[in-house]
Amino acid sequence: MRAVDIIAKTRDKQPLTAAEMKFWIEGYTRGDIPDYQAAAWCMAVVLNGLTDEEATALTLNMAQSGDMLDLHQIAPFVVDKHSTGGVGDKTTLVVAPLVAALGLPVGKMSGRGLGFSGGTIDKLESFDGFRVSLSTDEFLDMLKKHNIVVSGQSADLAPADGKFYALRDVTATVESLPLIAASIMSKKIASGADAIVLDVKVGKGAFMHTLADAEALANAMVAIGRGVGRKVAAVISDMNQPLGHAVGNALEVKEAMDTLRGGGPADFRDHCLTVAGKMIELGGKADDLSAAKTMLAKLLDDGTAWAKFKEWIIAQGGNEAQLNNPTLLPAAPIVETISAPRGGSIAGIDAAEVGKTGVAMGGGREKKGDPIDYGVGIVFHAKVGDVVSMGEPLFTLHARDDETFRMAKARLLAAITWSNEPVASPPHTLKIIG
Amino acid sequence: MRAVDIIAKTRDKQPLTAAEMKFWIEGYTRGDIPDYQAAAWCMAVVLNGLTDEEATALTLNMAQSGDMLDLHQIAPFVVDKHSTGGVGDKTTLVVAPLVAALGLPVGKMSGRGLGFSGGTIDKLESFDGFRVSLSTDEFLDMLKKHNIVVSGQSADLAPADGKFYALRDVTATVESLPLIAASIMSKKIASGADAIVLDVKVGKGAFMHTLADAEALANAMVAIGRGVGRKVAAVISDMNQPLGHAVGNALEVKEAMDTLRGGGPADFRDHCLTVAGKMIELGGKADDLSAAKTMLAKLLDDGTAWAKFKEWIIAQGGNEAQLNNPTLLPAAPIVETISAPRGGSIAGIDAAEVGKTGVAMGGGREKKGDPIDYGVGIVFHAKVGDVVSMGEPLFTLHARDDETFRMAKARLLAAITWSNEPVASPPHTLKIIG
Repeated sequence: MRAVDIIAKTRDKQPLTAAEMKFWIEGYTRGDIPDYQAAAWCMAVVLNGLTDEEATALTLNMAQSGDMLDLHQIAPFVVDKHSTGGVGDKTTLVVAPLVAALGLPVGKMSGRGLGFSGGTIDKLESFDGFRVSLSTDEFLDMLKKHNIVVSGQSADLAPADGKFYALRDVTATVESLPLIAASIMSKKIASGADAIVLDVKVGKGAFMHTLADAEALANAMVAIGRGVGRKVAAVISDMNQPLGHAVGNALEVKEAMDTLRGGGPADFRDHCLTVAGKMIELGGKADDLSAAKTMLAKLLDDGTAWAKFKEWIIAQGGNEAQLNNPTLLPAAPIVETISAPRGGSIAGIDAAEVGKTGVAMGGGREKKGDPIDYGVGIVFHAKVGDVVSMGEPLFTLHARDDETFRMAKARLLAAITWSNEPVASPPHTLKIIG
Repeated sequence: MRAVDIIAKTRDKQPLTAAEMKFWIEGYTRGDIPDYQAAAWCMAVVLNGLTDEEATALTLNMAQSGDMLDLHQIAPFVVDKHSTGGVGDKTTLVVAPLVAALGLPVGKMSGRGLGFSGGTIDKLESFDGFRVSLSTDEFLDMLKKHNIVVSGQSADLAPADGKFYALRDVTATVESLPLIAASIMSKKIASGADAIVLDVKVGKGAFMHTLADAEALANAMVAIGRGVGRKVAAVISDMNQPLGHAVGNALEVKEAMDTLRGGGPADFRDHCLTVAGKMIELGGKADDLSAAKTMLAKLLDDGTAWAKFKEWIIAQGGNEAQLNNPTLLPAAPIVETISAPRGGSIAGIDAAEVGKTGVAMGGGREKKGDPIDYGVGIVFHAKVGDVVSMGEPLFTLHARDDETFRMAKARLLAAITWSNEPVASPPHTLKIIG
């Protein structure tokens, strides 16, 4: 088998056999196949696509390029979720303890934020002492003792994916549905869950801008997951405006805590119930999504989910005082509420611009390794469809200094569009697959 | 300007500006842009193509990546030709002295053979002492004194093309019409000729297998040449069977010498008159191709072209004794004629198989740098359309040993197809562009 012949097949839209895909991924991971051959192949995939069988073989080989976690020694059935990334997306903070509270083990590896998308790991680090770097033994031990663990992603997990991603980033080959799907699913599959719910965002503040694209990505990931024998479902939801009210690490943690105690913004609560509902449905704990959501809503309202959250945060080293008194979480020196400069209906809150403003305030990263400020961010007091009178609170800024405050105020006022006519509150959940 | 954005534009079929193409080619030539980015871009070009304007800018920047020969200090108008490669293609050996004999300067850089295509430089080296490595000053001096020079290609000519080609060879990105056209034309443009006739072959023994592909390549090259202000024409001719009778370095030199003295195979003589005719038409020495061919035929028949050939070979250091007595050229120890194993019409002589057999006999190279045997080869006594009786001579083998003789005999007998019905002699010149 020669690397150049494999590139030629993909160039000519001839599907690679399982053996060819194995040779290709193993060769690239080992370094036998150089970057320039892999780059040409990635561009051929971007322009020609892959069949479902090829995408599944690619994913499995990337998953098998490093450690494959076996959780069955711990629990017969473990569930996981994955978000394609959005603005104000603190879903894991609620969903993981909620599902675990129902008795279904949740074992999850999460990423850090990059660009305008935040990361669960960053948000969790708002708690002093919270440990995200866990050994495999610690990961398994947490799962066994508490039915819940969320750690940073191990470097040994799907190293082929890391190598491919770094190359794709500099060769304009990121935008490929099968490569994106394989990248996500290889890590999920390597991290061992039996069932995975994909939280696919669509809109201005998401990687996918149209429902058709989001559906295509969701279908591709579902096909891959099922192709390797996992249970998979996908929830496609709106990300034209931020999810919930809060954007910023500690601010989002507080909003998640409110939600775990039965409060929180309605759109965010419903989103968490939908994603968690699909997880317990796949885990065999509910017959359908409606029954699942009813069961889970009860756990939010009766304190069970909140108790599980506290157990989890403390078990992973988080400061209990901050749990009991959220004002002890990182906070910004400047907290100021901006009033509506006019009256009317909110027609849009550009999620991408909100996310980028949050990064510019210090709450996110332009590039890997940048330090982040856990205290800064934005809390919206109105969302799309709400009618606001002039002078009513529009959003509150938590800023580190005057300069970033003024910058954020101007950008966010420009990111909000108004209408003199009534605007319908947009549907949040757009489609459920599986 | 960022390399990744340029790749993304070509990926998305957005034409690059002249400034972007310059940045890209200069950056890659200097090594600022790494191979993996160039490889991704080449694959995007293979699958998406380039506009004529982009191909022209690519070509000009590749030409300008090294020395640009200015021949105008020597002659006001210099012509050149380029063949896309075929089996038995000794055209330059006749055309260059023929055109020079008419008083039109021919300055040409040629390649060596690789795979089943022979190379003019190898053929010329059949003469003891013939010098193919000339300095720029020697090249110009030859052109000034003799109106003719054919040298090997200088390493300083279009180095970007050499770098791109080496990368394309290992990334399955050779098969791209604009990249092939730009590669050929960049070297032609850098070597300074004012007019270029492209000798485009089509068929089993050529790079292009269909007339449509050959026309597309010819049109692309003509557009590029004209885009940078050169006069360009293309002759598309059949390469399903070998050109002329002889395949093999010294054997082809002898056939060219026969042709220069008014003899030689009819198809080859006519091909030379057509290519040379277009050259002198572009050079303003004839009003149309028909008039040009008549003028040139006279020079073949009256000894003028032959005298120019001798002058040229001797001036570049070739052994005069071999010119006067071709039996002194390299010869094979085994010379044996194979008779027709049956009677009938010759329906086909697979040029690719003939070329490969010639390489296997020792007359060509599997890979760069392989030594070659100048004496070995094949001379056909019949061509497609000829009626042959059983026992009549079919072809003569010039072999280095019994083993290669037997191999070649078997392969060539299998490469010839027969018909019991009359077969029309196929047209040789298929199309003339420009």
